[in-house]
Amino acid sequence: MIPVIFRTNSFLLLKFARSLVRGNEISFEVSRKFNSRTMTTSLEPVAVKRIQKAWDVPVNSQPAPQLSIYNSLTRQKEPFVPNEGKRVRWYICGPTVYDSSHMGHARSYLSLDILRRVFTDYFGYDVEFIMNITDVDDKIIKRARQRHLLKSYFDESEAPPVKKVIEDVLAALEHFQKKYNEEVDPDKKKMFEVMIRKVQDSSSALEQAMIAKDATAIESSKGRLLNEARDVLSEWLDGKFGKDVRDHSVFDQLAKTYENEFFADMARLHVLPVDVLTRVSEYVPEVIKYVERIISNGYAYSADDGSVYFDTKAFEANPKHYYAKLVPEAYGGDNDALMKNMREGEGELSMSDERLKAKRSPNDFALWKSSKDGEPFWDSPWGKGRPGWHIECSVMSSAICGSKLDIHAGGFDLKFPHHDNEIAQVEAHYDEPHWVNYFLHCGTLRIQGMKMSKSLKNFITIREALKQYTPRQLRLLFLMHNWADVLDYSSSTMERALQFEKITNEFFLLVKDYLRRNYKPESSQGYQKYQLRELRLLDDFGKLKAEVHVALCDSVDTRTVVEKIRELIGLGNSYIMEKEKEGSIPNSLLIRNIAAYITSLLKMFGAIPEFSDIGFVNEDENAASGTTGSFNKEAVVMPYLTALAEFREKVRNIAKEHKIIGILEECDALRDKILPELGVRLEDRTAQTTIKLVDRATLLREQEQKQAEKERKEKEKAEKDRKAKEKAEKDAAAKRVNPEEMFKIGEFEGKFSAFDEKGIPTHTSDGEEVSKKQRKKLEKLWETQNNKFQKSAN
Amino acid sequence: MIPVIFRTNSFLLLKFARSLVRGNEISFEVSRKFNSRTMTTSLEPVAVKRIQKAWDVPVNSQPAPQLSIYNSLTRQKEPFVPNEGKRVRWYICGPTVYDSSHMGHARSYLSLDILRRVFTDYFGYDVEFIMNITDVDDKIIKRARQRHLLKSYFDESEAPPVKKVIEDVLAALEHFQKKYNEEVDPDKKKMFEVMIRKVQDSSSALEQAMIAKDATAIESSKGRLLNEARDVLSEWLDGKFGKDVRDHSVFDQLAKTYENEFFADMARLHVLPVDVLTRVSEYVPEVIKYVERIISNGYAYSADDGSVYFDTKAFEANPKHYYAKLVPEAYGGDNDALMKNMREGEGELSMSDERLKAKRSPNDFALWKSSKDGEPFWDSPWGKGRPGWHIECSVMSSAICGSKLDIHAGGFDLKFPHHDNEIAQVEAHYDEPHWVNYFLHCGTLRIQGMKMSKSLKNFITIREALKQYTPRQLRLLFLMHNWADVLDYSSSTMERALQFEKITNEFFLLVKDYLRRNYKPESSQGYQKYQLRELRLLDDFGKLKAEVHVALCDSVDTRTVVEKIRELIGLGNSYIMEKEKEGSIPNSLLIRNIAAYITSLLKMFGAIPEFSDIGFVNEDENAASGTTGSFNKEAVVMPYLTALAEFREKVRNIAKEHKIIGILEECDALRDKILPELGVRLEDRTAQTTIKLVDRATLLREQEQKQAEKERKEKEKAEKDRKAKEKAEKDAAAKRVNPEEMFKIGEFEGKFSAFDEKGIPTHTSDGEEVSKKQRKKLEKLWETQNNKFQKSAN
Repeated sequence: MIPVIFRTNSFLLLKFARSLVRGNEISFEVSRKFNSRTMTTSLEPVAVKRIQKAWDVPVNSQPAPQLSIYNSLTRQKEPFVPNEGKRVRWYICGPTVYDSSHMGHARSYLSLDILRRVFTDYFGYDVEFIMNITDVDDKIIKRARQRHLLKSYFDESEAPPVKKVIEDVLAALEHFQKKYNEEVDPDKKKMFEVMIRKVQDSSSALEQAMIAKDATAIESSKGRLLNEARDVLSEWLDGKFGKDVRDHSVFDQLAKTYENEFFADMARLHVLPVDVLTRVSEYVPEVIKYVERIISNGYAYSADDGSVYFDTKAFEANPKHYYAKLVPEAYGGDNDALMKNMREGEGELSMSDERLKAKRSPNDFALWKSSKDGEPFWDSPWGKGRPGWHIECSVMSSAICGSKLDIHAGGFDLKFPHHDNEIAQVEAHYDEPHWVNYFLHCGTLRIQGMKMSKSLKNFITIREALKQYTPRQLRLLFLMHNWADVLDYSSSTMERALQFEKITNEFFLLVKDYLRRNYKPESSQGYQKYQLRELRLLDDFGKLKAEVHVALCDSVDTRTVVEKIRELIGLGNSYIMEKEKEGSIPNSLLIRNIAAYITSLLKMFGAIPEFSDIGFVNEDENAASGTTGSFNKEAVVMPYLTALAEFREKVRNIAKEHKIIGILEECDALRDKILPELGVRLEDRTAQTTIKLVDRATLLREQEQKQAEKERKEKEKAEKDRKAKEKAEKDAAAKRVNPEEMFKIGEFEGKFSAFDEKGIPTHTSDGEEVSKKQRKKLEKLWETQNNKFQKSAN
Repeated sequence: MIPVIFRTNSFLLLKFARSLVRGNEISFEVSRKFNSRTMTTSLEPVAVKRIQKAWDVPVNSQPAPQLSIYNSLTRQKEPFVPNEGKRVRWYICGPTVYDSSHMGHARSYLSLDILRRVFTDYFGYDVEFIMNITDVDDKIIKRARQRHLLKSYFDESEAPPVKKVIEDVLAALEHFQKKYNEEVDPDKKKMFEVMIRKVQDSSSALEQAMIAKDATAIESSKGRLLNEARDVLSEWLDGKFGKDVRDHSVFDQLAKTYENEFFADMARLHVLPVDVLTRVSEYVPEVIKYVERIISNGYAYSADDGSVYFDTKAFEANPKHYYAKLVPEAYGGDNDALMKNMREGEGELSMSDERLKAKRSPNDFALWKSSKDGEPFWDSPWGKGRPGWHIECSVMSSAICGSKLDIHAGGFDLKFPHHDNEIAQVEAHYDEPHWVNYFLHCGTLRIQGMKMSKSLKNFITIREALKQYTPRQLRLLFLMHNWADVLDYSSSTMERALQFEKITNEFFLLVKDYLRRNYKPESSQGYQKYQLRELRLLDDFGKLKAEVHVALCDSVDTRTVVEKIRELIGLGNSYIMEKEKEGSIPNSLLIRNIAAYITSLLKMFGAIPEFSDIGFVNEDENAASGTTGSFNKEAVVMPYLTALAEFREKVRNIAKEHKIIGILEECDALRDKILPELGVRLEDRTAQTTIKLVDRATLLREQEQKQAEKERKEKEKAEKDRKAKEKAEKDAAAKRVNPEEMFKIGEFEGKFSAFDEKGIPTHTSDGEEVSKKQRKKLEKLWETQNNKFQKSAN
């Protein structure tokens, strides 16, 4: 018996002491002395059941920040909170596919790709990334019609008299002059001027050649003129014949061409595919319903011209709504630039005076545009027409995500009127003031500090940029500029990106070289002790990682992250140099971790590709001969296998047609014997042959099972054959029986005692005469057998 | 001028209204009417500068849970909060390297690898993962000594008389019998019994052979006896000569051997390398300092035997400390099992009665053990000795991480006394009650429901398990059991893991096949419209992802995650089947995303390897193949190409025979169009078709070079020909010159003024007679030319 004394002046501790003993069937007494409370109890050590000490949730001394993001709706950084769990519904405005993508497109889509990757891979959000393709648009219509008409004109003009060409060009020039006069944008005006001058020059050259009657000069001058006058002629032809273009495929083909080109450019830039793609051409019925709803909610009206316009005044009159949330300055004021944006937002083909007159207010914008001749159209309650520009994003984002979006993103220039009108439309449709929580707008792109424009001749397509720099170099440039800032694409900024690439790559190579010689994770080699120097570096490394986190939380500040990477490389390099000077080896785990961390950041940013995005990787793959490091076998092998499967399929179809058994057998052998040995499963499905790369062991097992199944079936068939043969033999034997003997043998043996001359029984075995009925049956049997016997005898 | 009236009964709104106008140099007046406050102001629309609408941080309707983890310190799940930012300092107990690693080790290290990956890759913590290697330990000392002595004995006993062998074995058996008698563990006792019986059997066999004087039988029986008696002899030899083993390398070598084996096993299981590895052999000076500090803090004492013990009573007497926080039941009670653990924790060589007597209390444990002869030692203030078992982890974690750890992890069996003693040591060293916030203990491993033990003959090494199953299959088994639960390794649980692997793999293959045919992210192909069915699947997919998050937050419940993956595959498969039945193509983006999500989870869990852990990937390489590092493309691709070429050849021969033009055309197209695009040159030679793999760029470059070389040679030849021709012409012309004329033309023209009858000059052009010497030369030239001329004339 050990006396245990708890002495304390705290009730809480006393309570705790009691709890220690409680339930252990120990008697205890409590006595009070002075101010302190004492509990004395005697207990056997056997009976003591100590409980665990109380534990508190730790306090984080340096709580890590949370993500905040620059929101155009407030023009400042805001904490990021999704509507629902970790799910982030994110809609971005895709391209209008009427021309090749340029670096301005890269600015948006590459920057948003980086943002999306950081949200997903760093912050762990479940991002649903939706993008639209604007494949119905005034620009597309006009470009498609002009190309189509110009092509027809050229096809016809192969041999037309020079006189006609000159006449046409002069008419076209006159027509173009009007356009020039009307143009207010000085950039465009300048560009038009140049165009006109060139046409005039070519024209006079042709005239001189004609005066000189120099046939060769005439021909070449005519060619030059036609070429220089393309734009001028296009405009003129479109003015004359545009309304006659009635074939929708003219528009569709142009859109499809540039859509394809856009995706190819994005793939080259390693921009990840979106999760959902919507094309306005596929959503016209939804657009019509959406517009009807806005009308019925009182925020739109159909005009006499067959168009439907949004009623900004009605919208603004309702206190729960507020027009132009992104750029409120644009409404009610008279900012020229914004008004110009507003007008241009309506589309090239939709800015005529009559259209303007149809609107109740100049701020109103088209939800549905009536289509004139030469414009694609769909039937609607308001006549033949097509969706306005802004409506598609409202409709399609609602169709995919419902009434709420977490993020809406796009280029800086889309803020007004496009995004503000989108907001108004969705609010008007749901008659609810909340739609998008965060609007992200990528900063603009400059070329050597200048605005990119065709007139400045600094217009650079993605393809052109990729001829000069690799996708990784371009991406590093983008990472070195924050997404919301102006990005300057110039030889000096690219030089800095290339320099960063070089420093980083040199560091990777240096570390890899050390590891190759000093580190084998599958043995003890390379696990060196961390001395003070290594602990200092480990600590600095930890601090830099924390700083990277802070930067990413600060509206995804990749510029600072790149600086931190550079700092970390500096730390790594000077550590390695120190060790080299000492004549000792740097700590393998530590330098490996630093290089791996930088790699993982660059992977997360998309600057280093991720492999094997779907599926297991075969365990035996690394063993493949001559391989160092890992590789994606499937990616390497599949093109060849596809060629093989397609070739086999073609050959097989022809062989089937001509019934060439030998070839069909070879086709089967390839599928069943040769390819399984190589780990390839070919499946002939009704529609097409499928190829599956499986590891060899699995395939061989499958093959064995197939073989067993085949053997089982063969056995079954053999058994069936045997039975059939047996039956046939029996039948044959039966045929050979003479009818005179038939009732004396086999099943009848011993059943009868007397027979007539034919051998038909007259008396049964017990001596009774066979009945007439029975006799008849027997005679019938006799006849049948006699027939068989006669036949078999012949 | 437009009058603007704000009418409101809220001061706040009024304030807001004022803010709208403020700074715009507009005068305004405020009048109060009834209860409401009205502000009237007249302003020109020009001057209105609308500001952005107020914005609130969104409210998350379904806030995602945060990570909580089962903590052995409270025996329940607790919210996880690191000490400092996102940094997680995590120490795990590594192996004592005296034998091969078994499945019990896999249980700990594989499960902790999964936990570490989830903390890092899913929750984004910056984990510093530290592990120790116990390479100084009683088990290592004993095993090393025994092996060393047995090897010497065997080396010597190659030829020793049989009699001596029998004598030694008998002596060893007698010695072993004592060990057997003292053993209390029934399992071990049984194992010893079997050992003894086998030695006895072999021994009598040898005796009988000797009686029979059968020389061959004697030799083989002797061999058998020596083999069966290994353990018994080892014990005996160690007892006799163990104290004479003084060479430290004996111990070091054994430890290094098994350390290597351990790392090799971990690499095979795809367990990631740790960030910091510590070996106790490298930390002895730190251990001594640490122990000194604990003594000076009053929580340890050096005993007469030269060891230092922890003073549990003194520790427990200080109210800020509490001994055995993990298993408080173990202190002050008399739980047999726990007391046995406590004793065993002191080490095989350190449980003698004299040691026990040196302790002030049976609960005290060794911080520093004095070394006897035949034990490795380091000098210390207490004499020659070595670190106790528990002290190393306290010292090394403090050396790397300082006084605080976020997580300490290890096997279930390490709770007491190892981890509880570690806690006591660190607290005593810093005299601070807080060290580790979260203690994670992996559940135990059972073999077919039974405890794994050598006596039950179900002891399975990692190597053995890997002969039966792939690392991936083992990992899937582990994922299907939660880390803190009991894991049953049996054919039936493995069967379930294999089944899950198969289902998942089939889904991957199916999706990949669809994508191969229907999805090209670099073009429009595969971006189909999301209909209602797809939107439903997208939504279900999102919900399952949220459920996976909940499961991972719930103490990293991988079992549930595996179930969710299976559910998701079910959803995917039935969607694909529905589409197949309809005869339409499943939405490529959607099925791709589902498969990619499952892949990313399995990657995160380590079931699918990550590539390119360090460094950039060459841009052209990744375009072609998704490759990191270099690999022999030819070796990988050639088997498939060979199959293709052979198949084509067979088909081609049959088609020739039957004159099937269609197939022959396909054969040509394959060779001339399809394969060259893939960088393959097929050459139909008489004997066989040859295959050449060239990358396209190289092929083109080679062709260019070939062409250039050809042109150069042609030019060279032309030049040579030209020269030869010129020379020939000259020669021919020379031959045709009559010697009588030769000094009047060519190089001689004008040099002479008079000639003889043969045409040989007599006087030079300036009238002088030619010298005799010159005359001779000229005559010689004349003769030569005359010869040529005569010949050419014939």
